[in-house]
Amino acid sequence: MSAIEIEERVRYSETDQMGVAHNKIYFEWFEIGRTEFCRQKGISYKDIEARGYYLVVVEAFCKYRKPLRYDEVFVIRVSLREITPKKVVFDYELLTKAQRKLIATGYTVHIVTNAKAEVSTLPEELTKKISAD
Amino acid sequence: MSAIEIEERVRYSETDQMGVAHNKIYFEWFEIGRTEFCRQKGISYKDIEARGYYLVVVEAFCKYRKPLRYDEVFVIRVSLREITPKKVVFDYELLTKAQRKLIATGYTVHIVTNAKAEVSTLPEELTKKISAD
Amino acid sequence: MSAIEIEERVRYSETDQMGVAHNKIYFEWFEIGRTEFCRQKGISYKDIEARGYYLVVVEAFCKYRKPLRYDEVFVIRVSLREITPKKVVFDYELLTKAQRKLIATGYTVHIVTNAKAEVSTLPEELTKKISAD
Amino acid sequence: MSAIEIEERVRYSETDQMGVAHNKIYFEWFEIGRTEFCRQKGISYKDIEARGYYLVVVEAFCKYRKPLRYDEVFVIRVSLREITPKKVVFDYELLTKAQRKLIATGYTVHIVTNAKAEVSTLPEELTKKISAD
Repeated sequence: MSAIEIEERVRYSETDQMGVAHNKIYFEWFEIGRTEFCRQKGISYKDIEARGYYLVVVEAFCKYRKPLRYDEVFVIRVSLREITPKKVVFDYELLTKAQRKLIATGYTVHIVTNAKAEVSTLPEELTKKISAD
Repeated sequence: MSAIEIEERVRYSETDQMGVAHNKIYFEWFEIGRTEFCRQKGISYKDIEARGYYLVVVEAFCKYRKPLRYDEVFVIRVSLREITPKKVVFDYELLTKAQRKLIATGYTVHIVTNAKAEVSTLPEELTKKISAD
Repeated sequence: MSAIEIEERVRYSETDQMGVAHNKIYFEWFEIGRTEFCRQKGISYKDIEARGYYLVVVEAFCKYRKPLRYDEVFVIRVSLREITPKKVVFDYELLTKAQRKLIATGYTVHIVTNAKAEVSTLPEELTKKISAD
Repeated sequence: MSAIEIEERVRYSETDQMGVAHNKIYFEWFEIGRTEFCRQKGISYKDIEARGYYLVVVEAFCKYRKPLRYDEVFVIRVSLREITPKKVVFDYELLTKAQRKLIATGYTVHIVTNAKAEVSTLPEELTKKISAD
């Protein structure tokens, strides 16, 4: 279950009057990260939803270590901590691009539901794809 | 077709590194304003959607005159410029609370669609309610 | 160190295509909550920053229990778990308005810095105010 | 004054309960577009601000023609309509990637200020760079 990495750049509108990226935006970056994680494992999250499975966030955590500034390019590193038919846990690291210094770490816990928000289970084919190396 | 007014306060996350409310957030305030406009005319926008009618934004404009800062309370004034079964136009003014100085003006143009995003027409009962004094 | 409560309403732009409030927006609500917490204790967060003290978020956590839908009014309940001159921890509960059912719980950990993002300490006068009953 | 193009992808958090990208997010995309416009002309917007010049948005307009869905990749095309030492106007087109169908058009008008939000003028060196082919 190898990690994936993508690069992002801080948007102007993601800063606040303290001059750094606002704390809530990290959870949007985590989301972009797990979207790309699924894509790189061969199944887009869009298709997972199209097939009737939703990975609903039930817990989200972020530890902020170094501020991020406007226009800075950084790395989002995503790995899969746990996957069962009923639950998925992703871990995240945000790193500076050049020196790979730690900017933030975090995780999200997801349960599986159907389109009606009822608890559901991921088919084996999907858990296999997401957990592939 | 009288105007309605509500008060809002600038959230920290709505500021950017220039120390003022970011330009995109005004369009969110316009949206809050027209939601309350409908409610004060006796029909919530939520119920309009529940009945199968969507007021889709096809044009949005804002002219920014005075910056807004974190924690500042201001007035959103909304009036209905035009309503037909196929099209609705709202006008907005943002004003300082104490002296009612102009912060911004703008408008949004909406067409009516159904849940499948196909062009539709508002029933007379709804256009009457929204355009009531 | 008594809790404070405010009411908020879910904005349209705070929903996502799942039809519920997006997970990142809860952290904006937590922020509104602690802003009002400080105000009700007699010192606005704006004034704390104006005096050169910043409560920088170093950890943020949310547990989501029940979805929130567009236009729903809910309660943000904020309490102070811990305050020292160097560190502040706020706890949050989001509750339905009528039946006070739990929507979400969470916390944020803050360190104190000056305007240059250097570690600082809150003067006793401020820690007293924030921790007053 | 040739146009530049960049590609972006719709984030999950940028959708609303109508299942499409929310109207306010287009103004964030316009902003990303003009940031890249300046960079491709050889001067980053970050550096323009670092030198004490701010391109403050005084008007913003968007016409929405086709909805954008989650995970869709699209093109942001930015061109410079007008530049003087006191005023800059950018035009935007959003296009589908494959068939280059029009998704939206818009513009933003900017005045030049210094860090204290006082009206200022761009030095000739900067207007030349931004308006270069």
